Amino acid sequence: MFKKYNVIVVGAGHAGCEAAAAAANLGSSVLLITMNMGVIAQMSCNPAIGGVAKGQIVREIDAMGGYTGIIADKSTIQFRMLNLSKGPAMWSPRTQNDRMRFAEEWRWQLESLPNLDMWQDTVKEVIVENGRANGVITSMGIRIEADAVVLTNGTFLNGVIHVGEKKFGGGRTGEKAATGLTEQLVSLGFESGRMKTGTPPRVDGRSLNYSLMEEQWGDEKRGRFSYTKVDVPTEQRCCWITYTNAEVHEVLKTGFEKSPMFTGRIKGLGPRYCPSIEDKINRFAERERHQIFVEPEGFRTVEIYVNGFSTSLPEDVQLKALQLIPGFENAKMYRPGYAIEYDFFPPMQLDLTLETLHVKHLFFAGQINGTTGYEEAAAQGFVAGINAHQRINDLHELILKRSESYIGVLIDDLVTKGTEEPYRMFTSRAEHRLLLRQDNADIRLTPIAHKLGLVSDERLAIVNEKVKNSDDIVDYFRTNSVSTETMNPILAEKGSSLLTQKTRLFNILSRPQIEIKDLAKADEELRTYLSQFNEETIEQAEIKVKYESYFEKEMEIVNKMKKMEDKEINPDFDYNSLTSLSIEARQKLLKVKPRTLGQASRISGVSPADISVLMVHMS
Amino acid sequence: MFKKYNVIVVGAGHAGCEAAAAAANLGSSVLLITMNMGVIAQMSCNPAIGGVAKGQIVREIDAMGGYTGIIADKSTIQFRMLNLSKGPAMWSPRTQNDRMRFAEEWRWQLESLPNLDMWQDTVKEVIVENGRANGVITSMGIRIEADAVVLTNGTFLNGVIHVGEKKFGGGRTGEKAATGLTEQLVSLGFESGRMKTGTPPRVDGRSLNYSLMEEQWGDEKRGRFSYTKVDVPTEQRCCWITYTNAEVHEVLKTGFEKSPMFTGRIKGLGPRYCPSIEDKINRFAERERHQIFVEPEGFRTVEIYVNGFSTSLPEDVQLKALQLIPGFENAKMYRPGYAIEYDFFPPMQLDLTLETLHVKHLFFAGQINGTTGYEEAAAQGFVAGINAHQRINDLHELILKRSESYIGVLIDDLVTKGTEEPYRMFTSRAEHRLLLRQDNADIRLTPIAHKLGLVSDERLAIVNEKVKNSDDIVDYFRTNSVSTETMNPILAEKGSSLLTQKTRLFNILSRPQIEIKDLAKADEELRTYLSQFNEETIEQAEIKVKYESYFEKEMEIVNKMKKMEDKEINPDFDYNSLTSLSIEARQKLLKVKPRTLGQASRISGVSPADISVLMVHMS
Repeated sequence: MFKKYNVIVVGAGHAGCEAAAAAANLGSSVLLITMNMGVIAQMSCNPAIGGVAKGQIVREIDAMGGYTGIIADKSTIQFRMLNLSKGPAMWSPRTQNDRMRFAEEWRWQLESLPNLDMWQDTVKEVIVENGRANGVITSMGIRIEADAVVLTNGTFLNGVIHVGEKKFGGGRTGEKAATGLTEQLVSLGFESGRMKTGTPPRVDGRSLNYSLMEEQWGDEKRGRFSYTKVDVPTEQRCCWITYTNAEVHEVLKTGFEKSPMFTGRIKGLGPRYCPSIEDKINRFAERERHQIFVEPEGFRTVEIYVNGFSTSLPEDVQLKALQLIPGFENAKMYRPGYAIEYDFFPPMQLDLTLETLHVKHLFFAGQINGTTGYEEAAAQGFVAGINAHQRINDLHELILKRSESYIGVLIDDLVTKGTEEPYRMFTSRAEHRLLLRQDNADIRLTPIAHKLGLVSDERLAIVNEKVKNSDDIVDYFRTNSVSTETMNPILAEKGSSLLTQKTRLFNILSRPQIEIKDLAKADEELRTYLSQFNEETIEQAEIKVKYESYFEKEMEIVNKMKKMEDKEINPDFDYNSLTSLSIEARQKLLKVKPRTLGQASRISGVSPADISVLMVHMS
Repeated sequence: MFKKYNVIVVGAGHAGCEAAAAAANLGSSVLLITMNMGVIAQMSCNPAIGGVAKGQIVREIDAMGGYTGIIADKSTIQFRMLNLSKGPAMWSPRTQNDRMRFAEEWRWQLESLPNLDMWQDTVKEVIVENGRANGVITSMGIRIEADAVVLTNGTFLNGVIHVGEKKFGGGRTGEKAATGLTEQLVSLGFESGRMKTGTPPRVDGRSLNYSLMEEQWGDEKRGRFSYTKVDVPTEQRCCWITYTNAEVHEVLKTGFEKSPMFTGRIKGLGPRYCPSIEDKINRFAERERHQIFVEPEGFRTVEIYVNGFSTSLPEDVQLKALQLIPGFENAKMYRPGYAIEYDFFPPMQLDLTLETLHVKHLFFAGQINGTTGYEEAAAQGFVAGINAHQRINDLHELILKRSESYIGVLIDDLVTKGTEEPYRMFTSRAEHRLLLRQDNADIRLTPIAHKLGLVSDERLAIVNEKVKNSDDIVDYFRTNSVSTETMNPILAEKGSSLLTQKTRLFNILSRPQIEIKDLAKADEELRTYLSQFNEETIEQAEIKVKYESYFEKEMEIVNKMKKMEDKEINPDFDYNSLTSLSIEARQKLLKVKPRTLGQASRISGVSPADISVLMVHMS
């Protein structure tokens, strides 16, 4: 009953929405299949986007024409730029979001894409013919053909929800799990595994005593994720911080014997860096308290998300412990926290394009690959959607480098090293993080997206102008000087040593305490000059001046590695023929099928000696 | 882990929301339990409220302090007063609604009620002690005590969804069914049955050709459901009308052999007056076409509800047939239509308060009682919520009379006659429908709600003023006359016979073609007099003048019946002791436990002779 589509995307969460939108925007006819059109783009866990490293990912998706940043901006109830006191590589945008608005805006966005159709159904099977995905079969028994299929099943594959000793089948509370698909993929030769994640209780905000908590407001000068300037809500909402204590921990411990985490009922590994509260008090027994972020779920709801209190302990223990937290004495629970176990497919079964190695034209993105986080999912979906389109049209694949994006780091890590626990992005995972900043995601990636056809000429022109103008400003700073009389009063004010002679602006700005705005305050001519540029461009120039030497050093490292990173390997190379490779290296190389020598060098079990063998062979 | 509540309401659909709100507003501490807090107050079927008889019900709920009318007003995308060409007893307000906004507004409304708590869980069991409901036990194994329990489980009890030959467990698509509760209630002695209902496919509005359909706009002069004047959306959206044809019917017939309706796979009876399209072409084979209403799902969605095309035929047949409808040639389906079978409890097991006869302090409302329709559900929920509160506080119960409300007709019908197929309200079900108008729901019911404490003094004062002022206007019309010179030009214009002498305004207004606005146009003094009153009051006076004689006759009938209706019977009366009653009458009377002689007289199987026996015995 359906025409043949170019791309079918299964699942309409963060990964599925970006995948479907990207492929559709590139010109593919796309069918997005979801079990329930009423719950598209749910924030299943906390009502927030971004944060350290994750905020950079959102900026990267946005710089390339994805939508997560735009949707997050439109549904922002509070914006904060984290780590402003640290260097710009650490600056990380984060929003609290209106959960309902977020979902509504995504759905409205999807509905506006002319190449995108939707269908409410559950996919039971991927049609595979001659080793190639050729469509799907749904629970209604419908066969829908397509040139490529992207699976973004999230936590729904054989999902089981745990609360204390009780367990229920389900992909989220109240929603059904998806069965059958894992089994089919395993029968095709895929390896599957089990992971778990969890979510905290939600409470009635009217039952909390906020006077016992610390207020946490958003930034006064409100930022955005998107380089495009969409309308954002004018109002902001307050969040709060409170803490657990020894009493809370004692109560939680009374539930340990019924905890599915500790009794072994949950087999899957959970997210190490987003642990449950029982995990935290178990693993960090010495800590007297843990921070709890009290986050409103939106503008028009009293519901509160108790961030930091993820748990699958029995619901009565959850409530009793909650009520010992300052401000929560009379807390009423709306929904208990729960853990969910689900199937994933270890990502070493994927190519760097997110196409599976076993089945051509089949792509995996999001939690199905063993990641955690909306941003990680969205990034994978975006890349998978692009590559699905590129693949079926014999166009150039999109593989982002580790030195040019967090998205590149994410996918390279997954595909090259695999993951045994839910993978979350951190700045520390990126060896070139100094270069991967939220302020330059457009400079790094918009040109790439423009080549793909995802970004308009106008948008590229804006980026090019930002680059040119910020370079001009840097040049201005290099060539123009300021007199002692003009500058010294401000320097004195800032506690910076005084000038003894006319000095170049560049040199003064290199001082840690001094910002462009201080120079502009002192120097009227500079003020006039700068008035022609927008804030973002001036900020970019400031970052360039202040961190120039660091960036240069980092680029040297990148360039040194470039030789390895650019050295391509035929993915079907028969490593067994190279007997001087260690046996482990041969096995791992055959499994991962690295695209470059650089990628090969990151495979665990492949030693520098093995790499040398490869280099010799290849030259 | 929970305190004892006064009232627990199970289910957060139209019935559950009104029940919870009403009990909370009366002062009960209420816990509303829903399987998924993300999908409160869903319009599971068409995105519309009101219509013939149903619109009157919404006005009645509103007049008594319920919320359905307010929520519908706030989410209106189009308002129409149906049947304006007929008498005022037939005028029926109806809105198309924004499905997402409707749910959002209800949830926001519930969250604003201080006595109302919510909990996300599935109820597995009603705790019954000494023949009295004492709380519930949930799927998480939590025991929550309460003085009274209201069950509003909708289509979720053992729900099974059918599309062609496929069937799935579920309460709505993508949502789980509720299991266990029916079985427990049956074990307590309740009789359960099976019903079915259905819903049409939804399509992508961008794929339709509206130029081949008839436009249907809302009223220019926009009305409202609520007597309170809440803010309503300013924009309205267009709907469309199109028709099936012989070809469409032929294609649909090709699916009959796979139809769960015709193959006997569906056992439950469906709604006679909201039949599936296959039912319509089967039962009315002589009709060449059926009307299809093309209804947008909201302001910010392209999704379209294909009203009139409810079906459980195989999805490919649905699509093929749809595409033969003018304007639907290229229709893309988002979701197929489906039928759903679910458990209900035949409502003769209820008292007129909606308390069950078997278990005290247990109330049933909505589809669980065998009704269909949001409005019917909301009305029952509202009454059940009120009576739950009244019951546990030994306060006067709310039993609305058939002569004072559609809600009274609805509940009296259900409880006295039962129903074997989904019960829907019609004006024809109300013997006193001339009195049960949308324009006077406030006059009929606000004083009753005020006595209960659901409506403020201010609101009652407004109603009293409306009554007084409209009476004053009628008096004015009775006592004031108009000259031939003043009146005749307008009469000539209206084609009404000319006056030959000064005539009372009342007599002129009694003419069918003449409205108050015509009189006011002619008579400056009247214009000045009327300027002190609002539109609603003037309309009320006009209706009084024009239909006075009909209303008076109707009231005579009501008063004649009053003796029977007011004659109370002890519900525990031992009818077996009255051997002069027929055996059938004894059995039925024992089953229904009528509250009045009037109710007894409406029981099927109780003859006028039986009623005479009862009257003799009682006097």
